[in-house]
Amino acid sequence: MTRFDLSPQAARRMLGPLIPAGADDDAAVERYATVVWCHLVEPGDSVAGRLVAHLGPAGALRIAVTGEPTAVVDERELSAGRRRWLPRLAVGAVADGLRNAARAGAVLVTRSDPEWPGQLDDLGAHAPICLWVRGSVAHLQALQPSVAIVGARAATSYGDHVALELAADLAGSGIPVVSGGAYGVDGAAHRAALAVGGLTVALLAGGVDRAYPAGHTDLMAQIAATGAVLSEVPCGSTPTKWRFLQRNRLIAALTDATVVVEAGWRSGSLNTAGHAAALSRHLGAVPGPITSAASAGTHRLLREYGAQCITSAADIRELIGLEVGAPAMRSTDGRSRTDDTTRVRDALSTRSWRETADVARRAGMAAEDIETILGLLHLEGAVVRGPAGWRMALPAG
Amino acid sequence: MTRFDLSPQAARRMLGPLIPAGADDDAAVERYATVVWCHLVEPGDSVAGRLVAHLGPAGALRIAVTGEPTAVVDERELSAGRRRWLPRLAVGAVADGLRNAARAGAVLVTRSDPEWPGQLDDLGAHAPICLWVRGSVAHLQALQPSVAIVGARAATSYGDHVALELAADLAGSGIPVVSGGAYGVDGAAHRAALAVGGLTVALLAGGVDRAYPAGHTDLMAQIAATGAVLSEVPCGSTPTKWRFLQRNRLIAALTDATVVVEAGWRSGSLNTAGHAAALSRHLGAVPGPITSAASAGTHRLLREYGAQCITSAADIRELIGLEVGAPAMRSTDGRSRTDDTTRVRDALSTRSWRETADVARRAGMAAEDIETILGLLHLEGAVVRGPAGWRMALPAG
Repeated sequence: MTRFDLSPQAARRMLGPLIPAGADDDAAVERYATVVWCHLVEPGDSVAGRLVAHLGPAGALRIAVTGEPTAVVDERELSAGRRRWLPRLAVGAVADGLRNAARAGAVLVTRSDPEWPGQLDDLGAHAPICLWVRGSVAHLQALQPSVAIVGARAATSYGDHVALELAADLAGSGIPVVSGGAYGVDGAAHRAALAVGGLTVALLAGGVDRAYPAGHTDLMAQIAATGAVLSEVPCGSTPTKWRFLQRNRLIAALTDATVVVEAGWRSGSLNTAGHAAALSRHLGAVPGPITSAASAGTHRLLREYGAQCITSAADIRELIGLEVGAPAMRSTDGRSRTDDTTRVRDALSTRSWRETADVARRAGMAAEDIETILGLLHLEGAVVRGPAGWRMALPAG
Repeated sequence: MTRFDLSPQAARRMLGPLIPAGADDDAAVERYATVVWCHLVEPGDSVAGRLVAHLGPAGALRIAVTGEPTAVVDERELSAGRRRWLPRLAVGAVADGLRNAARAGAVLVTRSDPEWPGQLDDLGAHAPICLWVRGSVAHLQALQPSVAIVGARAATSYGDHVALELAADLAGSGIPVVSGGAYGVDGAAHRAALAVGGLTVALLAGGVDRAYPAGHTDLMAQIAATGAVLSEVPCGSTPTKWRFLQRNRLIAALTDATVVVEAGWRSGSLNTAGHAAALSRHLGAVPGPITSAASAGTHRLLREYGAQCITSAADIRELIGLEVGAPAMRSTDGRSRTDDTTRVRDALSTRSWRETADVARRAGMAAEDIETILGLLHLEGAVVRGPAGWRMALPAG
């Protein structure tokens, strides 16, 4: 069987400053085992997730290496898992990842760290084993509430504009904006949050040491300078399609609401929205012209996912419970003072004077009933009373 | 007390050809009483509605004239009703209305006629007492199913375009299009239905003898020529604000679904939508740019009224149960063959050959599991097999 040095000495040698000052040997070994696990699995591996959750990273790693039976996962799952994991178990690969992290100034946050964002645990066995962070890890505790603004890479100018407006308003009012760092809607959301001095967090599908797209290298550096750039995969990892799909679950889990600004019919943003719905997070979609292919996906979210229709940052605040909505529209049942007033106004002229009885007949109302209303309209200055009856006041000016 | 000649002779003299051939004296009197009632009340008068429904138009009219107590409405309601109705009880007014109708070629449909659209009875005591019709009354029985397409008078070119497209598609496929004859969305919907040779019906707030707006005089004539122009108020009546609001309840009641294309924040179309919701009719709203004031009302319907998001005529057919919708989006839970295939594709290169074990390690999957997938991808021509392993096929062309 494969051998792997999980001694405290190996842990301290490999991780160096990634082990917090004052950590005891057990903590150092658990931390190292976490890093090793993160090199063994693809994101969302639930067999690894269960092993690590129940046995701790080091205990789980020993089972992975030895193949010793455990009550946590059944024999078939363990055996299939080992066939996935063990081909990647190489001290060189882990050393490479750590070297890339050190070079990029990325730090490690594990589930036992106080900075760990607990909302990710809603993913259960699919939760990430650790996060790599460029920027301040303190921000991870500042994301409740927070909002994900995501959408099409090929955004239209409408989508760019809306993403900018929503993100600037939210971030400017103290609500962190999370997105995926891509071109289009994601980039607009990050930039707007930065522009208003708000907190923004980018979640990447590849390692945090490399911007994807490369054209966003500067943007990622700016985000890291005041916010945080996050990933669950080791530094140096390429952003594969699978990792994009799994990254989307982290965006959904990290935030209180996912708002999709523009998305094509088969956009990856719908995947993020699906995760948000599965996690019982709030889901919003910004409508657009039905003639625009870039809004086909958001309309699909409104139709098929029960996404809330988002037309403003206030709508998003309402979605996450931070703002009371406008009062619902008035019921159309029954008659009200407003209805009667409409009928009295309908019965008046701006040119001719009309007697009360005439006004009543024209309104189809009893004369007694309209007297009060005429009186109120008179007080408001909306009608004029004269010797020959009533008429509408002329508009001022 | 006011006297009013309700004899069969008076009925036949006043209504002339509006009394069907072969109608007996009782039927003639009931028909005349209906016409009289329609001159006495404003639309939606539920006290009159209950009297007429329970006692028949002539019996109800006798009660209205005499003030005799009845079990149908309480004394206070009857007394208030009489104060509304009796000032309008004048044989001259009725004669004027009938003369206007004759001049316009308008015919009468009452609740006892076979052409009466029974769906209006869902309005209960608020149902109209009769309908005045320009065009063929036979069309009234052809409105199940039918769809109301309504919206802003001040439609944008986007709203006009969408109304045209939706109405042309629906009317062209045999679904009648009902609207309110106004400028903007209403007019576009009528015109498109006419253009494709479909059935369209206009419901007016004033008498059917006068187009409102006057600029739609020709359009109303065209609608009457192949469809129908309807109103519940007597010919010669002006379209007051109250009558517009009440007309909206008829549009909602007559159709299976009300679809609002563009509407400002306080548009009258929201009133129609409110009636549709209150009547448990289907309600649809077409989204638009959130930066467009002309879509603020439709977004409000999506948010506050639970209106269905409409992006195409197919969506409307689905709304009224005529078309099965696209299958719902795939669940994002669990792993599928698609997921595994994604991971295998991620692990392949178009340039380098990779051994199965290498592909497995990169995919984070067991070698045995990826062999089947590589085999399937090979059959599809998506991957190429060579002596040094596998690589992605280059895109054709």
